[in-house]
Amino acid sequence: MSEATEPPVIVLVRPQLGENIGKAARAMLNFGLTEMRLVAPRDGWPNPSAGPAASGADIVLDQARVFASTADAVSDCAHVYATTVRKRGVTKPVVTAEQAARQFATQDGRSAILFGPERSGLEANDVALARAILTIPVNPDFSSINLAQAVILCAYEWSRHRDLAIPPREELLPPAPQEDLEGLIAHFEKLLEPKGYFFPEPRAEATRMTLRSVLTKPGWNHLEIRTLRGILSSLSRESVKGTDG
Amino acid sequence: MSEATEPPVIVLVRPQLGENIGKAARAMLNFGLTEMRLVAPRDGWPNPSAGPAASGADIVLDQARVFASTADAVSDCAHVYATTVRKRGVTKPVVTAEQAARQFATQDGRSAILFGPERSGLEANDVALARAILTIPVNPDFSSINLAQAVILCAYEWSRHRDLAIPPREELLPPAPQEDLEGLIAHFEKLLEPKGYFFPEPRAEATRMTLRSVLTKPGWNHLEIRTLRGILSSLSRESVKGTDG
Repeated sequence: MSEATEPPVIVLVRPQLGENIGKAARAMLNFGLTEMRLVAPRDGWPNPSAGPAASGADIVLDQARVFASTADAVSDCAHVYATTVRKRGVTKPVVTAEQAARQFATQDGRSAILFGPERSGLEANDVALARAILTIPVNPDFSSINLAQAVILCAYEWSRHRDLAIPPREELLPPAPQEDLEGLIAHFEKLLEPKGYFFPEPRAEATRMTLRSVLTKPGWNHLEIRTLRGILSSLSRESVKGTDG
Repeated sequence: MSEATEPPVIVLVRPQLGENIGKAARAMLNFGLTEMRLVAPRDGWPNPSAGPAASGADIVLDQARVFASTADAVSDCAHVYATTVRKRGVTKPVVTAEQAARQFATQDGRSAILFGPERSGLEANDVALARAILTIPVNPDFSSINLAQAVILCAYEWSRHRDLAIPPREELLPPAPQEDLEGLIAHFEKLLEPKGYFFPEPRAEATRMTLRSVLTKPGWNHLEIRTLRGILSSLSRESVKGTDG
């Protein structure tokens, strides 16, 4: 369980301007981050405005991968953090960029940081994928961090903490990759749907969100999730009659 | 000696683009810094490009003061830090942004951080005013921090450390304001000049720099500087003959 910790993945969710994607790449590479993922960039990809703004950080742009959904983008990540300035009564742990960076440096499994679109920030659906909220404490009277600035502050904190001595680790398994968790959530939903759990329709969305939140919080490892999947499978089987004889 | 520590002054030395001045203002205010000083901005001041780039941080721009020289801009500051990425065989202490922020929060007297022009950075003459070099450790293979990013990282670090408990302070006087030091240096030069100390001319500049460096390093307090000035005055006086009788 002691492979070297990998740097966090920077996930730009529905970024609007190619220029900002380029600036984010430049911000990343200054502090040694190279893996960028783009979720449904508004103007497609590649974007001719990104390159000039990257000021030479072409390696980050060249290797950037595009995904159709945020869930797809973080499917292989064990630790997903959502950056947000708005508190929406979220029931997830909130960490500072510094605390998150310490976690990146000391936990197994890939970490990802989600950044929302320039104007609107992450949507509740994106935040729901995350196990924690990453926040940068700013002036309460003037909070105006742009995308590339948020990225550079996170990258800077990663850089400051990357050389943290890896403390002696208990043989704890890291949380399962996000795709395992998604499988579990989908499994639950598939079983619950026909039971009228998401009825009435106007409340269905909120109910799904609550379910996701409950299942996301524990940070189960892959063995635990496998166990849960087994439990669900068992629950959904026809009752077994007359096994004797 | 325990007044509340004041936030550092951000000094932009010969900034080129108004847009970057605005971005720096925005970066500052996000983390509660409001005092900006401009040394000989290339396009004069006020600059119509600054406002839009400040995204609402108008208070910083409105209060910005303009100075003709870097020395003027920091004349009331006790602790001057020069940001630079280039190591020029400087014989000054080098601190990270984090270490500097801890110092801001725990030392008496005003602190100032000098940022150079976008393209070229600070000149040796500017750096010579500083008691320490402030550096941001970046990727050795890709170092491309722009002005506003350097400012935001410094402001962020200040914000992280501003609430540091002020440790019990010995009754140490802070270094004297920079203008006191300038007075001392000028006093030395005035006395040395006629002595041929700065001769031959081609070496004069380097010799002056060396002198400044030697006098800047100690961080003398105002009493010590007063003492030194008194010593210089004494040295320059005509010899007193026949005091007896």
